[in-house]
Amino acid sequence: MIKAGIIGATGYAGAELVRILAGHREAEIKWYGSRSYIDKKYAQVYQNMFQIVDDTCMDDNMEELSKEVDVIFTATPQGLCASLVNDEILSRTKIIDLSADFRIKDVKVYEKWYGIHHPSAQYLKEAVYGLCEINRGDVKKARLIANPGCYPTCTTLSIYPLLKEGLIDPNTIIVDAKSGTSGAGRGAKTDNLFCEVNENMKAYGVATHRHTPEIEEQLSLAAGEHVLINFTPHLVPMNRGILITAYASLKKEVTYEEVKAIYDKYYENEKFVRVLEADACPQTKWVEGSNYVDVNFKIDPRTKRVIMMGAMDNLVKGAAGQAVQNMNLMFGLNESEGLDLVPMFP
Amino acid sequence: MIKAGIIGATGYAGAELVRILAGHREAEIKWYGSRSYIDKKYAQVYQNMFQIVDDTCMDDNMEELSKEVDVIFTATPQGLCASLVNDEILSRTKIIDLSADFRIKDVKVYEKWYGIHHPSAQYLKEAVYGLCEINRGDVKKARLIANPGCYPTCTTLSIYPLLKEGLIDPNTIIVDAKSGTSGAGRGAKTDNLFCEVNENMKAYGVATHRHTPEIEEQLSLAAGEHVLINFTPHLVPMNRGILITAYASLKKEVTYEEVKAIYDKYYENEKFVRVLEADACPQTKWVEGSNYVDVNFKIDPRTKRVIMMGAMDNLVKGAAGQAVQNMNLMFGLNESEGLDLVPMFP
Amino acid sequence: MIKAGIIGATGYAGAELVRILAGHREAEIKWYGSRSYIDKKYAQVYQNMFQIVDDTCMDDNMEELSKEVDVIFTATPQGLCASLVNDEILSRTKIIDLSADFRIKDVKVYEKWYGIHHPSAQYLKEAVYGLCEINRGDVKKARLIANPGCYPTCTTLSIYPLLKEGLIDPNTIIVDAKSGTSGAGRGAKTDNLFCEVNENMKAYGVATHRHTPEIEEQLSLAAGEHVLINFTPHLVPMNRGILITAYASLKKEVTYEEVKAIYDKYYENEKFVRVLEADACPQTKWVEGSNYVDVNFKIDPRTKRVIMMGAMDNLVKGAAGQAVQNMNLMFGLNESEGLDLVPMFP
Amino acid sequence: MIKAGIIGATGYAGAELVRILAGHREAEIKWYGSRSYIDKKYAQVYQNMFQIVDDTCMDDNMEELSKEVDVIFTATPQGLCASLVNDEILSRTKIIDLSADFRIKDVKVYEKWYGIHHPSAQYLKEAVYGLCEINRGDVKKARLIANPGCYPTCTTLSIYPLLKEGLIDPNTIIVDAKSGTSGAGRGAKTDNLFCEVNENMKAYGVATHRHTPEIEEQLSLAAGEHVLINFTPHLVPMNRGILITAYASLKKEVTYEEVKAIYDKYYENEKFVRVLEADACPQTKWVEGSNYVDVNFKIDPRTKRVIMMGAMDNLVKGAAGQAVQNMNLMFGLNESEGLDLVPMFP
Repeated sequence: MIKAGIIGATGYAGAELVRILAGHREAEIKWYGSRSYIDKKYAQVYQNMFQIVDDTCMDDNMEELSKEVDVIFTATPQGLCASLVNDEILSRTKIIDLSADFRIKDVKVYEKWYGIHHPSAQYLKEAVYGLCEINRGDVKKARLIANPGCYPTCTTLSIYPLLKEGLIDPNTIIVDAKSGTSGAGRGAKTDNLFCEVNENMKAYGVATHRHTPEIEEQLSLAAGEHVLINFTPHLVPMNRGILITAYASLKKEVTYEEVKAIYDKYYENEKFVRVLEADACPQTKWVEGSNYVDVNFKIDPRTKRVIMMGAMDNLVKGAAGQAVQNMNLMFGLNESEGLDLVPMFP
Repeated sequence: MIKAGIIGATGYAGAELVRILAGHREAEIKWYGSRSYIDKKYAQVYQNMFQIVDDTCMDDNMEELSKEVDVIFTATPQGLCASLVNDEILSRTKIIDLSADFRIKDVKVYEKWYGIHHPSAQYLKEAVYGLCEINRGDVKKARLIANPGCYPTCTTLSIYPLLKEGLIDPNTIIVDAKSGTSGAGRGAKTDNLFCEVNENMKAYGVATHRHTPEIEEQLSLAAGEHVLINFTPHLVPMNRGILITAYASLKKEVTYEEVKAIYDKYYENEKFVRVLEADACPQTKWVEGSNYVDVNFKIDPRTKRVIMMGAMDNLVKGAAGQAVQNMNLMFGLNESEGLDLVPMFP
Repeated sequence: MIKAGIIGATGYAGAELVRILAGHREAEIKWYGSRSYIDKKYAQVYQNMFQIVDDTCMDDNMEELSKEVDVIFTATPQGLCASLVNDEILSRTKIIDLSADFRIKDVKVYEKWYGIHHPSAQYLKEAVYGLCEINRGDVKKARLIANPGCYPTCTTLSIYPLLKEGLIDPNTIIVDAKSGTSGAGRGAKTDNLFCEVNENMKAYGVATHRHTPEIEEQLSLAAGEHVLINFTPHLVPMNRGILITAYASLKKEVTYEEVKAIYDKYYENEKFVRVLEADACPQTKWVEGSNYVDVNFKIDPRTKRVIMMGAMDNLVKGAAGQAVQNMNLMFGLNESEGLDLVPMFP
Repeated sequence: MIKAGIIGATGYAGAELVRILAGHREAEIKWYGSRSYIDKKYAQVYQNMFQIVDDTCMDDNMEELSKEVDVIFTATPQGLCASLVNDEILSRTKIIDLSADFRIKDVKVYEKWYGIHHPSAQYLKEAVYGLCEINRGDVKKARLIANPGCYPTCTTLSIYPLLKEGLIDPNTIIVDAKSGTSGAGRGAKTDNLFCEVNENMKAYGVATHRHTPEIEEQLSLAAGEHVLINFTPHLVPMNRGILITAYASLKKEVTYEEVKAIYDKYYENEKFVRVLEADACPQTKWVEGSNYVDVNFKIDPRTKRVIMMGAMDNLVKGAAGQAVQNMNLMFGLNESEGLDLVPMFP
């Protein structure tokens, strides 16, 4: 039985880790870290867990925690994990960091976009970007995982095959993304109040969103050249779900079958990436509560572009689910253990 | 491995049966009955099941179906199950009917409220009302289960202990219920369009809703006398969830502890009924996607009434989850097999 | 042109006053008070008012304000208006207080339910409870209006005729109310975040909600005797709208026509109270954005109770609209000036 | 007093015409046409209009209607207006067609994208594309107005200034649009049920949506060359609101101030187009219920693209509001008569 600790267990991503691990047969949570709710019953913070979780919230002492558990999930704002991690901790325990601290290899890029100093850049090289479908081999051997961001996961998986195979022009990629509100976290901000979000939508972080360089790094790796994109996230009145619509110019004329074959080449053996049937547009509701990413594409012969689409649950494949998938790989378990979550509809 | 067939697999309750049975380790679906979608891939009707269910929809031939499966779920409008069931079928297979056909023992009451003739009233006596927490013993021996309605399940479980123990005056019970829209089914009606339901709420079926006599029959059994209630359902802009708020006059002065002890007497060993802590009001989101009913109460010393509250997911404990719970009991399985569904929040 | 000042102009009720007064032909806002946003452009706080309102937020100096305007609206938490009002101010200007400070005549009841000391109880006698349909005559002569609460407005108007005419037993009244989330205000609280409210519902303040004594006082006045009720509010995932469902025992057998005639007697000349046609249940969407209250009733001959229903927009008739209606009466204007707001559907 | 008739008065756009004209001081509706509800009280179909509209629904006899009214609004599916209009009717009355019949000048393009024969292509030349801000002069003299589509209105107004001034490369334009569900109409389809739309989002009509050629025609006129775009609409769980996010490559380096000046050049005297302040992203809630289009832009110096954004209420500026704006111009009234609708928030 793998012993797991969560730092930041009372945020939405942390709570989703708790939900998923509650159904995992080979892991158990030993530490519910939450600075805001120390000594409070976890089930009083998340009452859905009443009579399921009996534990009490603890502080976020990573030092002590590392002595008690096999794996630590940090579901905290950027900067925290990087400020706590050290060699001793890493020698005792594995870390899966759900923040952005170790996702971007170039520390200057990280510091520029996040506006903070990186306190432990020496681990950037070791840290593995935990996009399992692409980096499975490295994940298995890792001590420190940078769990990918929600938008980067959905975007990269949607575009990767066509970029990797050289079908699209990297300089023409435009990503228009839409997200439910749980991605904004559980902080009490006016902008995230029900009445401000409901019956409303808007773009935000236009041309400046921090997931941009993370996506660009992954796409650059796929393309084998430096890629710049436009990435525009939007806030939509729903709890869960990310939908990305990506546009790129095709380098040559292709048929539906040719493009489909490329997607299948990469994903037909991937349990958690479903390439939909022709003309079926991904819908976030079809993946809600599950670890699936549904992807598909449409060729526009008029403009010689391809529209690539992806839908996933931002809290599962975009955060906690992918973190558990990484844990499974790191510990040699069945990759989908605990993740046989059937999407809930309606 | 129990072989199951579903008649009405493409309604919302049928689809929820599919979702739940997909995670059941001792049952498998052999027949996805759906008159509207015969020969269509089930996963094209419910695309959340893409790459999970590979089967094709079949017609609703109960005769033939009974030769192939161990248990039939009928998730269809009232009248259908009653018109198909016969001795031969019941000799071969168990039936769990999610419609109202066998819930009300008095055929005259059924025919009056539902406005249709009951074609097989001879099975009313045999049919067991499948409210597991109350009729567990009978369910285990049953061939034919009348799976309770959504409102009756939530209402009865919320009121039962106090009524059974004689704490409240049966003639003063008023039930004000609120439901998400999945309870209205998947039929294409103007009233259930997004724009008609969203940002809107209303009462409906005031003083005439068909669940009234079903609730009254169950409460009468608990009270040992004939009970008449007011029951008012409301439509609320959400997919899933039923919340009931019930009012009754207390027969004598009681303390919180006394009432709590009564609830605990009935439910402390019940996995799926959670009696919340003092002053915690049940919220539908805390049970979403799960088989739990959360109940609680509040004494009002000023008016000498008690307010009883219950929340559950209408598609799970109010339909498919309870049906699977009944199946588990009928086949001697662990009662919660396939039902270890952790509520999803947010 | 009436000069108006608003203290608390950046809460939801204050903002609704701004919206309504923007279309009022005989009043103009001279003071947008908002302690939190002093010196900030109002249209930067509520960007719907961009290019409509050019003013900047001011502090809440009632003394100074009273020298500049003819009427002051206080859309602030309880306690503020009562702590600022004095004879000098009242000699210069009229006040319409949207808080609870002057609604309850018995200061002991106020202090008990609100848990605060009333600093200016001497004005309680003078203050007029501004439920226009019932107290129109007094409103016209008032200097100080206690603008009714949202729940009390909808509840009182729904029940008043039958209680006043002695048709129902006052001791049996139970009010089950449901409200959209704007009633909870714009404060940044976790409980009011989109993800906590959306796809969720719950009762709150059970047996303890502060609108209870306000409703009881109004119903007592109608009944001519002291009335105790149960009042249970619920939070529902929508922005605007209050729906109340009230239950009471009929004192004698009555027909639909008799009850309808009583409602018509009180409301047929009331523009803002619409008694719906037989069997039409009020829906909040039918009154959204308008000053209407839609009411109707249903007799249940089985239980000898009547179910009374009312729907309105909590921010209009439940707050800002009624405040403007009061202002119109106080200044001798057409009662519906600025309030010809057609409900928006969908 | 202008006499108006509506064909299709019970669809969402027709109902919005009724709402807006109810507040118009110089027009009155004489004919509520609705084939589905002939002889039914209009206020029984849209109960928000109870005690506001007393009329009964009529059939859609344009011939007869043209003898009784000064202007006819056709808020019907494509094909209907084109099949009814003739010289005699146009000699008697003005027509504002909310369908697509007369929007696209090239009949072959219309017939290809809509898949139907155009029965009265002879009026295409005469019909004026009623985008008031751009074609004001022609609208004033028109007998027959092609009222623009919702997406084309929002898209064209957002892009027009930069395209007209030659700032962007027309061949790089990509339009990613999001719409609330009222745009899908009031037809009873499974896809538009509350439970299918709520908590869900999806792209639809990818590379094939019928508004594409309409947008392209308008952008081509602005650019002075033939423009091909990608246009991808998405369905979002809200009633009202369209948000468009458009991307294009800049032809040269420009500053914020230069681009802002161009937008101001076109819109500073336009009441209904609001160019927001720097960095404020348009939100649909800020224009809900009103005739405003909020636009803004963001330059991305990294990719040398500009992101143009626009938000509006699809039923107002995207349909009924713009139709009334056209009527006002055609009859020499104040352009904003009846359209001083303050956006409702929240």
